Amino acid sequence: MTEKITSKDNSLIKHIAKLMSSAKYRHENACFVCEGIRLCMDAVFSGAQIICFCFTEKAFEKNRENAGLICSAAKRCVELSAPLFSKLSGTDTPQGFLCIVRSEEKSFKAEKGSCYAALERIQDPSNLGTILRTAEALGADGVILSSDCCDVYSPKVVRGSMGAVFRLPVCIVEDLTQTVWELGKKGIRTFASTPRNAVNINETDFSDGGVMLIGNEGNGLDDSTIDACTDRVMIPMKGRAESLNASAAASILLYKLICG
Amino acid sequence: MTEKITSKDNSLIKHIAKLMSSAKYRHENACFVCEGIRLCMDAVFSGAQIICFCFTEKAFEKNRENAGLICSAAKRCVELSAPLFSKLSGTDTPQGFLCIVRSEEKSFKAEKGSCYAALERIQDPSNLGTILRTAEALGADGVILSSDCCDVYSPKVVRGSMGAVFRLPVCIVEDLTQTVWELGKKGIRTFASTPRNAVNINETDFSDGGVMLIGNEGNGLDDSTIDACTDRVMIPMKGRAESLNASAAASILLYKLICG
Repeated sequence: MTEKITSKDNSLIKHIAKLMSSAKYRHENACFVCEGIRLCMDAVFSGAQIICFCFTEKAFEKNRENAGLICSAAKRCVELSAPLFSKLSGTDTPQGFLCIVRSEEKSFKAEKGSCYAALERIQDPSNLGTILRTAEALGADGVILSSDCCDVYSPKVVRGSMGAVFRLPVCIVEDLTQTVWELGKKGIRTFASTPRNAVNINETDFSDGGVMLIGNEGNGLDDSTIDACTDRVMIPMKGRAESLNASAAASILLYKLICG
Repeated sequence: MTEKITSKDNSLIKHIAKLMSSAKYRHENACFVCEGIRLCMDAVFSGAQIICFCFTEKAFEKNRENAGLICSAAKRCVELSAPLFSKLSGTDTPQGFLCIVRSEEKSFKAEKGSCYAALERIQDPSNLGTILRTAEALGADGVILSSDCCDVYSPKVVRGSMGAVFRLPVCIVEDLTQTVWELGKKGIRTFASTPRNAVNINETDFSDGGVMLIGNEGNGLDDSTIDACTDRVMIPMKGRAESLNASAAASILLYKLICG
């Protein structure tokens, strides 16, 4: 038996709307929303805890098999009227599927020989989503985020990551500089990407793996974080453009670290 | 003497609004709009033909030196009231500077030993802007676009390119497959990026340069275009993500072609 909701004043509807708009609310409730058939299926296949599955009648009928799978994985299944779903949706053409998913920080211990990305104060959700997607596609073992990055569970990041948030170990740390120090002391190489006093990535030996640090879109990495790293690396650049976009730089840097 | 416009019914205001919203109108008028101090200065320094410079009084006063430079380069200078500028602006926090710039296709002949990107049906303006920015930063000699890519002069692309549209030779071709064929016949290597029957980019010799072809976000390159290329290359991928975002893939591929 599934419930049916048509009123925008229903408490679940208010809950979802707040989960979609407020990072603080997501954090307090330890859950987030993913939208669309593909992301909902990603949640199921990655074994995420699905607190609630919401759908429109039309979407359910059109995707019976997937809908059935998500329903059996979800604790609660709720049919929403199409206008209500549209109102909640973050997209112009909603697919009629969304899930509330438990957010579980997959903590991990960085090991020698493994490859990680570490992001400091990345502010643009599109950049964060793209970097997570790239890190997963290239085979990174995990991603470390400074606590002042934009929220990894915002709808834009979840969508941009193409579900990587469900699968990739992501660890949020209070003090990234300190974390980098400790990794270095354990013999793990930590690469600060910075144009100053840095070695061309083509002349850097990445064979031991390590952690690639990527800084804020406007200002790059903090000086203290750069100082805490064991190595400094840079992408050779020729053009007049001052720099690469953060996610473009991350793609090249992670490629070199992992596959290069 | 500068003019002053306060009415939204003024013909120049209507002209700018249409230039910002319609690719067809931009094409018919062979001009486009760039907004913000940095992009307007980029237009000046790259020698672009500035048809009109619009500014608010406040922005002019705050940036006298830059405003003076742009004014002396522009054919026409117009002060707009702040509310009018806000209405026109594509951003939430307008800087009070915009220019109408002549769009001139910088045609170029691909040469042996040079490096180019060629994009087929890229649809997302953010991707196109980022790829242009990356191509310039890495030192590409030019970019070839299929005519069904999104418009290179849309405000989002111009902004995302960080001014690369002013400096990078960009050539739009009606039949990309045919162009690729002809380049191959001239002895220029053309690399199709595709996961099928392709060689790992780590095992590909890029020492002669060539053209890196990147396809549509959802569907990749057309089969006919892949067949027309001299080489097929792929980025090694490990994760469950089906693919990289088009601009992330382009970053890695262009890096390998140009700097790798």
